[in-house]
Amino acid sequence: MTTDTPAVSRPTPLTRAELPKDLWSHPIIFRHGQCDPAGIVYTPKFFDVFNQAIEAWFCERLGLNYYDLLGPRRLGLGYAQASAVFFAPCRMGDQVDIFIRVAKIGTSSYSLTLHAMKGENEALRGEYTTVTTSLETLRPIPIPADIKDALTTYYEHSNSLT
Amino acid sequence: MTTDTPAVSRPTPLTRAELPKDLWSHPIIFRHGQCDPAGIVYTPKFFDVFNQAIEAWFCERLGLNYYDLLGPRRLGLGYAQASAVFFAPCRMGDQVDIFIRVAKIGTSSYSLTLHAMKGENEALRGEYTTVTTSLETLRPIPIPADIKDALTTYYEHSNSLT
Amino acid sequence: MTTDTPAVSRPTPLTRAELPKDLWSHPIIFRHGQCDPAGIVYTPKFFDVFNQAIEAWFCERLGLNYYDLLGPRRLGLGYAQASAVFFAPCRMGDQVDIFIRVAKIGTSSYSLTLHAMKGENEALRGEYTTVTTSLETLRPIPIPADIKDALTTYYEHSNSLT
Amino acid sequence: MTTDTPAVSRPTPLTRAELPKDLWSHPIIFRHGQCDPAGIVYTPKFFDVFNQAIEAWFCERLGLNYYDLLGPRRLGLGYAQASAVFFAPCRMGDQVDIFIRVAKIGTSSYSLTLHAMKGENEALRGEYTTVTTSLETLRPIPIPADIKDALTTYYEHSNSLT
Repeated sequence: MTTDTPAVSRPTPLTRAELPKDLWSHPIIFRHGQCDPAGIVYTPKFFDVFNQAIEAWFCERLGLNYYDLLGPRRLGLGYAQASAVFFAPCRMGDQVDIFIRVAKIGTSSYSLTLHAMKGENEALRGEYTTVTTSLETLRPIPIPADIKDALTTYYEHSNSLT
Repeated sequence: MTTDTPAVSRPTPLTRAELPKDLWSHPIIFRHGQCDPAGIVYTPKFFDVFNQAIEAWFCERLGLNYYDLLGPRRLGLGYAQASAVFFAPCRMGDQVDIFIRVAKIGTSSYSLTLHAMKGENEALRGEYTTVTTSLETLRPIPIPADIKDALTTYYEHSNSLT
Repeated sequence: MTTDTPAVSRPTPLTRAELPKDLWSHPIIFRHGQCDPAGIVYTPKFFDVFNQAIEAWFCERLGLNYYDLLGPRRLGLGYAQASAVFFAPCRMGDQVDIFIRVAKIGTSSYSLTLHAMKGENEALRGEYTTVTTSLETLRPIPIPADIKDALTTYYEHSNSLT
Repeated sequence: MTTDTPAVSRPTPLTRAELPKDLWSHPIIFRHGQCDPAGIVYTPKFFDVFNQAIEAWFCERLGLNYYDLLGPRRLGLGYAQASAVFFAPCRMGDQVDIFIRVAKIGTSSYSLTLHAMKGENEALRGEYTTVTTSLETLRPIPIPADIKDALTTYYEHSNSLT
């Protein structure tokens, strides 16, 4: 088990120039309370800001009120899988811009990739797979048509940017 | 891109009987403030309790004071990668027992698998890869000998259990 | 407005000997993620652990499942007022024992005082005033009889201790 | 102890028209992860957003980089006292604008009042008393001159608004 090879294979961080131009992003300034005694952002807080970015993206960019989906429409948007790869530490006062890409759209699930860019470079990357469920039954249901349309349109638009 | 196949391949949840007998675990009761308006635990909180479990494991089971490592010894134990797969929702008042397994020990990194068992079944599973760094330079350094010994001993002990 | 007098009057911290003997308490170990870059607990986290202590107190000491109250019984236990006075800083790895006293019981509200003792001395003190509401209407309702009885019994028991 | 009188005396919520015109404010949208299973914001999260507002106010309005104060300057801005009074519940998706007023400036402490306005009405009000300390000694020190000047100027400016 002890080995000199890296414990995991890791993707290469992007530069801002490698992202599509004019792609929507959500700015986050890391605050004092999100950082730990080492002076860097506490890992679970990155997942919190990814969630915040997804909510802002639904409301501001997809034109779907995330809170109406969860509330009156009783739609669950929980995760089957969530992961992050960390490239560079973030400190209090640092700003990242979180860019969202649609990676995959299935029948009752979809996957997003979140690129958190600090200055010109990617500081960390998240991958989230959401399963659409009924909050009554907590069972998967097909992605509602308005959400599927919005995800597809965003996916196509992102890919048309250069 | 739109497809009917599942968006991700997923591992199969364990039952408690499949874990080594007498493996150390850390109990967590999910509180009201960790749950969201859908009544289930907010995803980033799972990463928070995984971190709490790792800290308790260092202090209680490995015999290494996690806070001395980060404080006086200025050792960084940040993550290169963190991920979780979710099998069953957790609600306020639910208890999980978090079992930790050492998956890999490298030169300056190690990987842990965390099984969160709710009753007899695995509710979610985490995978964390830690890189040992100097908090002065934020550069990787070899895993200190006392930590490497403790990880190796725990790994061997876990595997000797049946 | 500029003045040399203290900005606020403050109570005097208790010693453990001043608390009733055998009073129930809830232990908390402050973890890395609850502390900030100054190395001390981030203020809002104290309110979080006060809430956790109150939930544990309901479940373990009053014999009332806090989660059934909020869930099936649709009882709101929100706050009209919450405050804390800080006497001594807490650092990662520190343990406090949180002792709860019932300060006041009204018709549709009650007040609790929470003493967080670090070793022999009070590190901070919280004061919470809860208003019992219907989660259907979000309007105040009289404290349900089983809760009022449990609070009264605890109040009388605490005062009988020496 | 059981009584029909309210457990606490409470201030009256302000309307937006009662605040000075053109007073600086910090907008917050409450996200899903800040809300609890009752669908309303979890109390400790209000203290978290008050802290965020204070940090933004230092950086954006007072022209003092909060993170340089805590970091290179090793200045502690911890709290002697923190409290909040709650007037109306906040739900996910709700926006509040947080207005800050300087209530008192002492030798080594100052007090702030935070009005969180939802639409035209105050949803909650916070009161924070900060003690300026050395992060080396954790002992109080006089408020540094640049901070005292900025607080005084803001105080006088706020009062000149109508």
